[in-house]
Amino acid sequence: MITEKSLLMIPGPTPIPPQVAAAMTQPMINHRGEAFFSLFDEVSQGLRSLFRTEQPVYIFPGAGSGGWEAALVNTLSPGDTVLSVSVGDFGERWVKVARALGLTVERLVFEPGQAANPGRIAERLNADKARVIKAVLVQHNETSTGITNDVRTIAQVVREHGALLMVDSVSGLGALPLEFDAWGVDVALTGAQKALMCPPGLSMIAFSERARAASESSKMPRFYWDLKAVHSSYLKRQTPYTPAISLFYALQAALRMIQAETVEGAWARHRLMGAMCRAGVKAMGLSLLAADEAWASNSVTAVRSPIEPKKLRKTAREQLGVQLAGGQAELEASIFRIGHLGYVTPNDVIQALTATEMALALNGHPVELGAAVTAAQREWVRHLHG
Amino acid sequence: MITEKSLLMIPGPTPIPPQVAAAMTQPMINHRGEAFFSLFDEVSQGLRSLFRTEQPVYIFPGAGSGGWEAALVNTLSPGDTVLSVSVGDFGERWVKVARALGLTVERLVFEPGQAANPGRIAERLNADKARVIKAVLVQHNETSTGITNDVRTIAQVVREHGALLMVDSVSGLGALPLEFDAWGVDVALTGAQKALMCPPGLSMIAFSERARAASESSKMPRFYWDLKAVHSSYLKRQTPYTPAISLFYALQAALRMIQAETVEGAWARHRLMGAMCRAGVKAMGLSLLAADEAWASNSVTAVRSPIEPKKLRKTAREQLGVQLAGGQAELEASIFRIGHLGYVTPNDVIQALTATEMALALNGHPVELGAAVTAAQREWVRHLHG
Repeated sequence: MITEKSLLMIPGPTPIPPQVAAAMTQPMINHRGEAFFSLFDEVSQGLRSLFRTEQPVYIFPGAGSGGWEAALVNTLSPGDTVLSVSVGDFGERWVKVARALGLTVERLVFEPGQAANPGRIAERLNADKARVIKAVLVQHNETSTGITNDVRTIAQVVREHGALLMVDSVSGLGALPLEFDAWGVDVALTGAQKALMCPPGLSMIAFSERARAASESSKMPRFYWDLKAVHSSYLKRQTPYTPAISLFYALQAALRMIQAETVEGAWARHRLMGAMCRAGVKAMGLSLLAADEAWASNSVTAVRSPIEPKKLRKTAREQLGVQLAGGQAELEASIFRIGHLGYVTPNDVIQALTATEMALALNGHPVELGAAVTAAQREWVRHLHG
Repeated sequence: MITEKSLLMIPGPTPIPPQVAAAMTQPMINHRGEAFFSLFDEVSQGLRSLFRTEQPVYIFPGAGSGGWEAALVNTLSPGDTVLSVSVGDFGERWVKVARALGLTVERLVFEPGQAANPGRIAERLNADKARVIKAVLVQHNETSTGITNDVRTIAQVVREHGALLMVDSVSGLGALPLEFDAWGVDVALTGAQKALMCPPGLSMIAFSERARAASESSKMPRFYWDLKAVHSSYLKRQTPYTPAISLFYALQAALRMIQAETVEGAWARHRLMGAMCRAGVKAMGLSLLAADEAWASNSVTAVRSPIEPKKLRKTAREQLGVQLAGGQAELEASIFRIGHLGYVTPNDVIQALTATEMALALNGHPVELGAAVTAAQREWVRHLHG
């Protein structure tokens, strides 16, 4: 068997298209010269389209999680209070970042499988008459639980209060609808290695005019993630420190692919893949972690595992050529996850479902072979019929 | 004319070997799985050999300058005093980082073209009876002036005082000798896009046991660059946040090339290229910025320009297929620089000298065509005769 050909169905890093891989092999260029400036322009324009914003989108060499730090250090001051709305492990991690940076964190925690309830957020914000809460932190898509939050409604609620709304869209942007300007988001951040189909190593972040104004009075010590430095370089079509040029080329190639598909087309593809995946999973007799299917993410599906998830994943990986993801933190022993974002197609979802079904069978769990694919095919056919 | 074939002779980013470019096209992998762990092991081992240390070398997705922040936030507390030893623009930038992070900066500044004088550092440290100075910051190689500091002697001086010695070796490591353990350096940082022959996007940093002990009591707020997080992941052959996997592959390929050449071989190659470049420059009748040739860097040569440097560089770039670097900050109008580090050979130095000589001639400055190359050839022949 060819064991190197293995389908990566984890929620990031995601598979790299051949065009993106090839783009990185271009010769190195001077980052203070014309060739870079035009690369910068094209990538910046592509990102603005993707974020649906007229604001600049800044690109840092860094992991997506660097955006968590960038969001906080540029807009707040030590001791400021932020409201963390958390529905899973990545929400909890952002809390740790905020605390490490000296912020006071109030928490609104929803159980794994639940989405953030905008009504509960409104209640808390309405009670904050003194406007102590300076910012609300929320995941667009919680990768660890496969839950998509209703950022649009949350944004309305937060706008009424006046706090800044900061959205971690690492596993959302490019796969799931996000309208930065129209919804009134203040900070949105993402990474290159998810729906953007690039290798990891770039952190992208947009700030609203409100957020940029807040940065004028922000007193958090900062250097690397400093908005002032990156903005003044941005105006010169540059970055303050040496940019990850090969990854810029990768991003350029990926953004051209997204432009060809259209942003709405990418959303529709992910919506279809999410529907197919959920239909398949349910046809196997398994249940979603999502307490309400309307909350289930179209970029990653979290499934309650009827057998030890590690066993299931090992069988899929070693015998069936498909890599699934495990659960994080307290979900490690109870769920597995199927990533379907980025350079992934309905055919890949079919493969992932096939492998999942067979991995269950091979581990002695009763399934009806073919049931999952049949259900997924029906979704696909329905989609094609319009 | 083929205008795309252009020789990049700037002090970073440097040209990418074909093996390194090809390495980045490998399929994406799970960063929490075996394939990544073995990649991590090999790269870590290669970096330890290059840093000449038994200590872990940590890799962050980031620009090299992120290492400046990592060095400071992990070892110091707000208000602590550091002694900045600066011989050029990158020294000045590190000062700004330290100030932005709330440190008190004492400065020892040497004029452009001068190296740091270890005796002057010793004087200042000897006067610090109260041991107020917690760390000394110095460039191994100041890219903006083409000056290499005597880190070995500086380290002896700093060791006697007891402060931590932090060395920015962004344009030094891999090109110029640095013995992290043997010299007693406490923090050394570099970037991938210089002598390491990789695209930009990785920041690498080593901490001595003393520096790691200092981090236990350090009170600087930190998240992204936090040593504790990266060290505990290191022990699990991982990184705390998603690593820049394609750049890890690039680094793996580059480190294999350096291993084949040997670290000492890479140093010798850069020594030869530095000598050739200086001989050629002097044969053109130009003078080095280095006030004493013994201080001149073997990774980048800074030259006093007899004509407007921008004109010279434009001619070389547009008509002669060679990209030279300009001067930074107050040196912009008076010098140009020839980078000769990374994936660069003596033949590339010959080309750079040829182009420089011709660019002078084409701009009306009197030169004797061929004189520079003749002088460089003599250095090369002398080297080959042993």
